[in-house]
Amino acid sequence: MTFAATVLTLYPEMFPGPLGTSLAGRALRDGVWRCEAVQIRDFATDKHRSVDDTPAGGGAGMVMRADVLAAAVDSVADTRPLLAMTPRGAPLTQARVRALAAGPGAIILCGRFEGIDERLFAARAVEPVSIGDYVLSGGETAAIVLLDACIRLLPGVMGAASSGDEESFESGLLEYPHYTRPAEWEGRTIPEVLRSGDHAKIAAWRKRQAEDDTRSRRPDLWERYSGARDQSPSGAQAKRKDER
Amino acid sequence: MTFAATVLTLYPEMFPGPLGTSLAGRALRDGVWRCEAVQIRDFATDKHRSVDDTPAGGGAGMVMRADVLAAAVDSVADTRPLLAMTPRGAPLTQARVRALAAGPGAIILCGRFEGIDERLFAARAVEPVSIGDYVLSGGETAAIVLLDACIRLLPGVMGAASSGDEESFESGLLEYPHYTRPAEWEGRTIPEVLRSGDHAKIAAWRKRQAEDDTRSRRPDLWERYSGARDQSPSGAQAKRKDER
Repeated sequence: MTFAATVLTLYPEMFPGPLGTSLAGRALRDGVWRCEAVQIRDFATDKHRSVDDTPAGGGAGMVMRADVLAAAVDSVADTRPLLAMTPRGAPLTQARVRALAAGPGAIILCGRFEGIDERLFAARAVEPVSIGDYVLSGGETAAIVLLDACIRLLPGVMGAASSGDEESFESGLLEYPHYTRPAEWEGRTIPEVLRSGDHAKIAAWRKRQAEDDTRSRRPDLWERYSGARDQSPSGAQAKRKDER
Repeated sequence: MTFAATVLTLYPEMFPGPLGTSLAGRALRDGVWRCEAVQIRDFATDKHRSVDDTPAGGGAGMVMRADVLAAAVDSVADTRPLLAMTPRGAPLTQARVRALAAGPGAIILCGRFEGIDERLFAARAVEPVSIGDYVLSGGETAAIVLLDACIRLLPGVMGAASSGDEESFESGLLEYPHYTRPAEWEGRTIPEVLRSGDHAKIAAWRKRQAEDDTRSRRPDLWERYSGARDQSPSGAQAKRKDER
């Protein structure tokens, strides 16, 4: 099944953009996914082809019109999830990426200016998605990131390396640190254990590094991870032991 | 002062990519920022031009070599911040974006494959940055997002609309919802208060909406916001009142 991405945007020339090169580009040429960019302005109804208007209640900038966006959405809507890239959305997670990649594709609405008329979200069941807690010039670069994350998971795109069980976030932890040749570089060596050939010891070391790095770099992830662990039977047991 | 972006990558053809169009593209042509993409492979030292090798300790995929990356970094290093896009990095925030945009630019290292030899980070004081809790095919699309966030803040790029005090994350809250004409659409109206012309009432309504949406959509942001508020004199007072 081909993963079908339809992007609604004022800048269709941005797509596939960086996704037309590298692994994603090869997968696009191989038909593993397809990318259609729809010009929102084609759905404007006045002679000026307006897609935006001043904010109700006043303030800087312009707001994208619900009626024009709804017409654009309706022209492509099918059973695929309908997302809008906006900093007001739910933070994108690897779990959501996996779910999207396992489905038929996505219709992605790219906001510009100050934002999108709020009525559109309820009227068309649009799922607002945020890729992070920062503000972009528009939803286009966020859509490229979302698609990049999905495409690498499509069958055949990454090969064996994408099984991904040990990747960051898959287990709720950051990934462990990597090392490769040269064994010594600028006086810095590769940790001894990684050259031991002892697979059990290596696995234990990597697990501990992943836990240590998550605890120190991402206390927010660590709290969720250790909280979830405490809910599991073995975790609960471990906790009771700690509390003695 | 021109904001100078130097991207170290195996795919220099991805830049400026989407940043060559729209507002960022105009700013690029106007010399507000410049974009240089450096091919990491040019710094390989063997006849195969290798940039990666198998992971020490075993496992899937390949790891980018510290020596090759260091040579690439050293060829462009100056006083600009040196960042690497990696899911193991610190989450990008709007505050970090503002600080970068106020500086001379950035040197951005884009990881590929399983990751970058960990020794590079300490040896070259590389700041690891993550744009979100998901995995990409490489650092390139993350670098595009980082640059997009910075460029829109450069003087003259966005005009008055970019003053940005009311944008998502600037105050620690999501932005309030937007509405524009038509006043009625598919039976849905714009909230009455926004048509009242009463600026104080409108400001109060928007503040409350921003707080309500942050509380329900992003309890993590809300906790930080209300925690910080409780630290302030007026917030502490409000809290004492609640506790009576």
